[in-house]
Amino acid sequence: MFRHGDTIAAPATAPGGALALIRISGPDALELCDRCFTSPSGKLLRHQRGGTVHYGNLADNEGNFIDEVLVTVFRAPASYTGENMAEISCHGSRWIIAEILRTLNRYGARTAEAGEFTVRAFLAGKLDLAQAEAVADMIAAGNRASHALASTQLRGHYSAALSALRGELLQLASLLELELDFSEEDVTFADRTALRELLDRATNDITELADSFLLGNAIREGIPVAITGSPNVGKSTLLNRLLGEERALVSDIAGTTRDIITENISLDGIGFRFIDTAGIRESNDVLERMGIERTYKVLSEARIILYITEPKEFGSTSMRAAIDAIGLHDGQRLAIVVNKCDSEKPSAFADPQIQSLYPWPVFGISAKYGYHIDTVKRFLTGCIDTEGLYNGASIVSNTRHYEALRTAAEALDDTRRGLDSDLPTDLIAADLRRSLDALGTITGEITTSDLLGEIFSKFCVGK
Amino acid sequence: MFRHGDTIAAPATAPGGALALIRISGPDALELCDRCFTSPSGKLLRHQRGGTVHYGNLADNEGNFIDEVLVTVFRAPASYTGENMAEISCHGSRWIIAEILRTLNRYGARTAEAGEFTVRAFLAGKLDLAQAEAVADMIAAGNRASHALASTQLRGHYSAALSALRGELLQLASLLELELDFSEEDVTFADRTALRELLDRATNDITELADSFLLGNAIREGIPVAITGSPNVGKSTLLNRLLGEERALVSDIAGTTRDIITENISLDGIGFRFIDTAGIRESNDVLERMGIERTYKVLSEARIILYITEPKEFGSTSMRAAIDAIGLHDGQRLAIVVNKCDSEKPSAFADPQIQSLYPWPVFGISAKYGYHIDTVKRFLTGCIDTEGLYNGASIVSNTRHYEALRTAAEALDDTRRGLDSDLPTDLIAADLRRSLDALGTITGEITTSDLLGEIFSKFCVGK
Repeated sequence: MFRHGDTIAAPATAPGGALALIRISGPDALELCDRCFTSPSGKLLRHQRGGTVHYGNLADNEGNFIDEVLVTVFRAPASYTGENMAEISCHGSRWIIAEILRTLNRYGARTAEAGEFTVRAFLAGKLDLAQAEAVADMIAAGNRASHALASTQLRGHYSAALSALRGELLQLASLLELELDFSEEDVTFADRTALRELLDRATNDITELADSFLLGNAIREGIPVAITGSPNVGKSTLLNRLLGEERALVSDIAGTTRDIITENISLDGIGFRFIDTAGIRESNDVLERMGIERTYKVLSEARIILYITEPKEFGSTSMRAAIDAIGLHDGQRLAIVVNKCDSEKPSAFADPQIQSLYPWPVFGISAKYGYHIDTVKRFLTGCIDTEGLYNGASIVSNTRHYEALRTAAEALDDTRRGLDSDLPTDLIAADLRRSLDALGTITGEITTSDLLGEIFSKFCVGK
Repeated sequence: MFRHGDTIAAPATAPGGALALIRISGPDALELCDRCFTSPSGKLLRHQRGGTVHYGNLADNEGNFIDEVLVTVFRAPASYTGENMAEISCHGSRWIIAEILRTLNRYGARTAEAGEFTVRAFLAGKLDLAQAEAVADMIAAGNRASHALASTQLRGHYSAALSALRGELLQLASLLELELDFSEEDVTFADRTALRELLDRATNDITELADSFLLGNAIREGIPVAITGSPNVGKSTLLNRLLGEERALVSDIAGTTRDIITENISLDGIGFRFIDTAGIRESNDVLERMGIERTYKVLSEARIILYITEPKEFGSTSMRAAIDAIGLHDGQRLAIVVNKCDSEKPSAFADPQIQSLYPWPVFGISAKYGYHIDTVKRFLTGCIDTEGLYNGASIVSNTRHYEALRTAAEALDDTRRGLDSDLPTDLIAADLRRSLDALGTITGEITTSDLLGEIFSKFCVGK
């Protein structure tokens, strides 16, 4: 997948800015830059100390001036990749960037694949696999919550938690494997009771981590919030109001929202993914019926559901039937939002007596005039527990990690069952080893070229 | 327009890449970064030498971790702006960039206006005004030719030519003004014949420079090429063929290209702006008549015109009438392109006998099958004299410079006329001074705050 030992180059910034950065890494990084770079004093980059910046002109392989640049020199191992590196800061013209890369290629630098700088950093032991993955998450993070997730992971807190867990299990595994060495003598080094306790604790920790994935993934991708209700109660208007702009289709004709519209918005640092669904009602229109089917799918995948209604419909049999039809499952939150309360005064629906009639909060709002929208926003942000998130708690946000944790937990269950049924030590040890291997893939103690290829193909070029 | 003495900050790269650069410039640049930056060794940026790079963590004003960054330290006067500067290289997340800027603002850095770093570089004497303008052109340059224009200007070759010219005129002005000091004694220090010669030479040089604007501006904006001809001869197909993709509207219905479509394409390093015009024919359709009017406007502004026809129409009275109707003016080039020569063999229209019948080159091509398209491409690139361009000749590409040169040339004409009519020395000197002032605005010896504001408002932020 990734070749090593050669010198790679790629732009690390997006085109279109005032400046652009081009990264070069590998054994020939500095010598290669010296071939196209000329400092006014004639100094060579390969003779410069790491962590220094040098001004000069860059020319192509025929000596044609390309740009005035700054080149930063990094020396192995004190660089991102652990190799010799140079970073060229040039003017952000697409043509200049292309010419510099063409020249570097001409002199022998290969164009880096997506994520290849970080692969090299991983292979050089600069960061583990979970940290490497966090690099991509850091770049993608669009709000405080997803950034907190990524930075906890990047800074190694998450890896440390996994490593502690793995350490305990490794000790256990060694004991079991020691028994195997003496198996003909029928000794039992590992205390079975202590072993069970340790297994319970580890299973618990792993399950807790795996369970955090529901929150972690939602924070990373945006908390899915379905907006639903009868046609023409103002679902799109509320969405627009939350978005603060007119993006959804709003009209007075019932049932205009046939396509499912998704909009991302950050509230209090948390990203929400609002999904405006087709209204739920009986229909003979094929397109509309398809819309209703999709609505139910969206509802089942949402973490939060806002059921929008209006005063004249509120409390009706049809409203209750529609909410029942949603079939809320565990962990889903719902609120009834009574729209068209077009007064600034506190809504009558905020009355505790009305609130006590329903197991869900009820908010009276006016999407049209923007009254009491903050009550809905507070409900939404209150649904997400950010306490641990901002305090560096280990939260799983990566599907690959989640799957590895599930595999590890299952293998520990097997280990436990093995112990309970007094299976031979070698079988128990094999189950435990499976669990360890699964955990090991997360931080990359256990890895394959395919796995690396898959992980880093999702990176941007230049990182 | 621009405040000085304070510390400014802005992102210098486009969002969306792996990395982003944030620039800070001003007296407090390093102290300000020290407030949010923590190096593992605890060192302070303000104690570091210029041209060095430092790794560490950046936190917001409440101590919350934002990102792992590299900070480059530049010390006055050895920096782009001539002030103390820091460049923060962080992960390219919009959220991270926004948080870093928010933190810097909180600590007292003002968000830089567009072009403000370059304004400071200009005010510090790091580059003159023409060079500063070339910075924006460098960033915008999308091909070899426009890049060559911008880099000649950025590297000061153009300023040097202007400066030499201005130097000669200044000497002349001093002599004339010396005469004024002794005016009561009626002396004539300045040799009137030598003065006339010098004026002629200067006028000549300035006119030559001003004349280069036609080429310079076309290279900068893209050489305008009009594609015209009867309806349904394949104008759009040829455009698509030149573009190498299906962007223009192609159909078999005569007169389908009602809107004027402009496409930019680089051929041999030169940017061409192809304008596909409505076909020229008598029409009662109002929309189509409007199209034809626009066609004539486009034709008059084009530098090159490709008249597209087909074998059965070639040489007809209507073809000749249509070409006559274009009313070619000085400096315009035209070629007749006979489309639908759907054979790979050399076209019969390439025959010297046919060529000799017309004052314009004739090319037989097949836009549909791509035959002989290269003859058209060679014609197009051959129309542009790139000899001087790539050898650092001073070519004016900036409208502001062109206008200043025109003003300078007019003032020199007045000076000349004054000499010829033996006007009093003070009037002649005033005309000469006007010319000098006009030239001085180009490189910024003469400048106003308004002028700076206007020039730099066209810059991108962070430069």
